[in-house]
Amino acid sequence: MNIDQKCFYCMKDARLDNLMVEVCRLNKSTVYLFKDQTFPGRCVVAYHDHCAELFQLPPSELHEYMDEVAQVAEVIFKNLKPNKINYAILGDLVPHTHVHLVPKYENGPLWGEAFCAKPLPVKTLPNDEFEELKKLLAKGLGAI
Amino acid sequence: MNIDQKCFYCMKDARLDNLMVEVCRLNKSTVYLFKDQTFPGRCVVAYHDHCAELFQLPPSELHEYMDEVAQVAEVIFKNLKPNKINYAILGDLVPHTHVHLVPKYENGPLWGEAFCAKPLPVKTLPNDEFEELKKLLAKGLGAI
Repeated sequence: MNIDQKCFYCMKDARLDNLMVEVCRLNKSTVYLFKDQTFPGRCVVAYHDHCAELFQLPPSELHEYMDEVAQVAEVIFKNLKPNKINYAILGDLVPHTHVHLVPKYENGPLWGEAFCAKPLPVKTLPNDEFEELKKLLAKGLGAI
Repeated sequence: MNIDQKCFYCMKDARLDNLMVEVCRLNKSTVYLFKDQTFPGRCVVAYHDHCAELFQLPPSELHEYMDEVAQVAEVIFKNLKPNKINYAILGDLVPHTHVHLVPKYENGPLWGEAFCAKPLPVKTLPNDEFEELKKLLAKGLGAI
């Protein structure tokens, strides 16, 4: 297991907690629900090991990780019925492989544009709504 | 083979030609070099079939496609030496699975931000430089 002490996906510290909440752990990744719910259902699927680029993963790891990313996308899709899901691995400053899953809705923000095309104000949910969404996803992933 | 007559990745028409140039075809995807080279080496890896979401691909197709995405990223990485590659599947309006591979450089535009965080002017290259870059990638992919 490769751990980077500077990386918040490795350390799971306050920097991570400020941005997202764990939904469940899968075999190769951890699923987080983003606190900013400007895009309802927005999640992160973080690979368990510290690895910057997809091509640095052994093929079998890449396959299993992508299966999990697809599984989470499907759970979001079936439960929240977005019109499209955007998938992004960015990580210039946090080079630990993690996919942002950003559900897009035809009548929602930035439909037809890159999800990050312009700064939008952060939108948090009331605690109960956030918990409900978290449970919905964990249930869909067979974690509860 | 599933073809959508409205989709420019299926039809490979002028809408596609305006944005990108084919580098080579791999087993499951076609590699394009983006004309806008604000991010040197920016490419698109388009899956051969018309399919909107990763979870709609059969697992073996997803694995082979992601292997190709990783292979193209590695070729970009080794040849152009970016500090990080950003990977994005957007496609709200063109729901044909394609990954944008956007090389990011520490001293280049939008380092540390989502590659699409703010509008940047389009940057095209002189023909010879563009052709050279295209050949470099095709060579790295074993296509020439």
